Amino acid sequence: MRIELFTVGDELLDGVVTNTHATTIGRALDDRGLSLDRVTTLRDDLPLLAREFAAAAARSDVCLITGGLGPTADDLTVDALAAAARVALVEDAQVWQDIVRIFGERTPAPQNRRQARIPEGGRALRSEVGTAPGIELRVGGCTFLAVPGVPREMSWHLDRHVLPAIDALGGDTTRRHTRTLRFVGIGESDLEVLVQSASLPAGVEIGYRTTMPENHVRLRGTDPEALQVAVDVLRAVTGDRFVSEDLDLVEAVLGQLRARGLTLGAAESCTGGLLGALITDVPGASSVFVGSIVSYADRVKAGVLGVDEAILADEGAVSEACAAAMARGARATLGCDIAVSITGIAGPDGGTPDKPVGTVCFGWQGPDLDRVQTRRYRGDRDRVRRMAAGHALDTIRRHLQRLP
Amino acid sequence: MRIELFTVGDELLDGVVTNTHATTIGRALDDRGLSLDRVTTLRDDLPLLAREFAAAAARSDVCLITGGLGPTADDLTVDALAAAARVALVEDAQVWQDIVRIFGERTPAPQNRRQARIPEGGRALRSEVGTAPGIELRVGGCTFLAVPGVPREMSWHLDRHVLPAIDALGGDTTRRHTRTLRFVGIGESDLEVLVQSASLPAGVEIGYRTTMPENHVRLRGTDPEALQVAVDVLRAVTGDRFVSEDLDLVEAVLGQLRARGLTLGAAESCTGGLLGALITDVPGASSVFVGSIVSYADRVKAGVLGVDEAILADEGAVSEACAAAMARGARATLGCDIAVSITGIAGPDGGTPDKPVGTVCFGWQGPDLDRVQTRRYRGDRDRVRRMAAGHALDTIRRHLQRLP
Repeated sequence: MRIELFTVGDELLDGVVTNTHATTIGRALDDRGLSLDRVTTLRDDLPLLAREFAAAAARSDVCLITGGLGPTADDLTVDALAAAARVALVEDAQVWQDIVRIFGERTPAPQNRRQARIPEGGRALRSEVGTAPGIELRVGGCTFLAVPGVPREMSWHLDRHVLPAIDALGGDTTRRHTRTLRFVGIGESDLEVLVQSASLPAGVEIGYRTTMPENHVRLRGTDPEALQVAVDVLRAVTGDRFVSEDLDLVEAVLGQLRARGLTLGAAESCTGGLLGALITDVPGASSVFVGSIVSYADRVKAGVLGVDEAILADEGAVSEACAAAMARGARATLGCDIAVSITGIAGPDGGTPDKPVGTVCFGWQGPDLDRVQTRRYRGDRDRVRRMAAGHALDTIRRHLQRLP
Repeated sequence: MRIELFTVGDELLDGVVTNTHATTIGRALDDRGLSLDRVTTLRDDLPLLAREFAAAAARSDVCLITGGLGPTADDLTVDALAAAARVALVEDAQVWQDIVRIFGERTPAPQNRRQARIPEGGRALRSEVGTAPGIELRVGGCTFLAVPGVPREMSWHLDRHVLPAIDALGGDTTRRHTRTLRFVGIGESDLEVLVQSASLPAGVEIGYRTTMPENHVRLRGTDPEALQVAVDVLRAVTGDRFVSEDLDLVEAVLGQLRARGLTLGAAESCTGGLLGALITDVPGASSVFVGSIVSYADRVKAGVLGVDEAILADEGAVSEACAAAMARGARATLGCDIAVSITGIAGPDGGTPDKPVGTVCFGWQGPDLDRVQTRRYRGDRDRVRRMAAGHALDTIRRHLQRLP
């Protein structure tokens, strides 16, 4: 099945908005074993859109369109579709009723009537999330599916109308399966070396993807048993670097802590609250996470966490002695079972020959857990902070995994 | 000048990578008063690329290409360019020397020799940041500029080679100027109403952009004096909602605090460290920001911040009384001049009829500053947390601005 996508809108061409629709739709199709042949971004220009839609009808089985379905005069996707199909536009009474109902006690503006127009022979994909309906229209051998560009509405239409319509068109009958393995603590190139040296069954395609601090390996193929063998082999050669298939690192650690009835707290310096922000990004973190002392200034390290002034004076704030004291102080102050500390130099300034930018010290305190470590990260301030927050959590994950 | 862009690579069509090159290039052109006519994303397919490049040569003055310049067999941009131009590929001795030099003591692999090939009549755009050179090639009336897709290399080539080459081609002689005004605390639609009701000089184009929690208004035109008048008018009607032209909200607040020699601390509950993370994302924040008590659990609010157990029991953690006590406690514990507190219900769970999801209470304490406030935010967990962190800072900004 040949599928292509048009993303319509000046904002995509002027650098105002990044084209995430192409990513969302590409991934959704890829998950079904289908793929996009091409993506074309065009301005709101009626003759141009009509010409390009007609060209797409001649080369593709399915043509997806996002954007240009709003109520204003520069929304031209419907007009261009009708022109490409050489049909008239007719008002859809049901869609107009939907729009009137959404407006409630307010009166729709005259231009809202534009949104009830459907090319003759087409079908309105009624919306429950906005005034703009989607449109399904057959032009020659090609099925057009046009949906609004507002991200929330696009996602809703994609799940509710577009993917089911594509499924209904049949397409590939050999369904491909995907398994995604998430790793932390091993770089993409090392992961690739490990994967290449493993004996994986034939017919399993391999892809890589980095979402700091995780690296993902995606296995795809038509045979679920071959995929299971590949998963087992990769888990065996990667050991405790493997996090999970379903959970990200934070979810995995929170799940482990919850299962063991343990609470978590932190003391952060160079991450400045990022570790806490990542943890509490997960709904329900409050059953495990009690809080964090963000001790950016040294006098907060001393005053709130009780780090000995002598450590700060002699070894400095970025030292394993300080990290250990911060973790002990956080555990006592916050009254949590496990505490982790992070203190480092995120850059771009503050590096020294001994402790260059990217140097980060960690401490962990808990039942059967008394550990410090120093690491050096490459990259910019954002990368150093993210990698450090990830390592702080990943060490807890591997520690808990080793416990009986 | 008609300019279009091809972004080449399977990863852009399978949802693995988002097409940020289109955004970067679109914005860079827009800043020069130029614009992209279209963006086309294609797979690494030699006949397809050659056909599409030839079609672009017939309709555009400049055709930019990113991706497909790597050393491996699926990198086909150079081959397709040569095919579209109907010329042979020749090895560029200087580029090959560059590659050998980059490899140093290692020996380049045979496939690296592919990267020294340039279409006959074309010019190598030598790289200082990777093995792949860019390529400039004239095909009919169209100038092709192809650069590597690796983001760091793409950006380097864009600044070093592509934009200067476009400038050299002449194009629009009337230079357009841009002024961007950043606002916080006013929604995009309210901003639009204000802008539309203001009397702006003729010839000033207006664009909007949201980067939570900021809303930006972009003014463009050829007459710098008319733009200055428009800036003055908009600043007058928007009052203290205007943050800055050059600085984002965090930078603006840090700058104000630094100028007055004041230090800042925080007590965070629902934001979980996000406020601290946003502040410390700015290098040099340590001269102002001392730290944050992330008191996610109520016993940390009581134990570390000294919030009265009676307040927690009677009014709850999400209350103005608790917010005020948190801010007072943070100021005392952290020893800072100004302290801000955030406690709320970010969702998706935890809402009640009285305090629905999105309810957030704030407290501010400092010299001449003793304030609490409750706000309700629409949207998901991420939006509630980001808007709350923004408001916490923005109130400090407006407070400091009012001081003599």
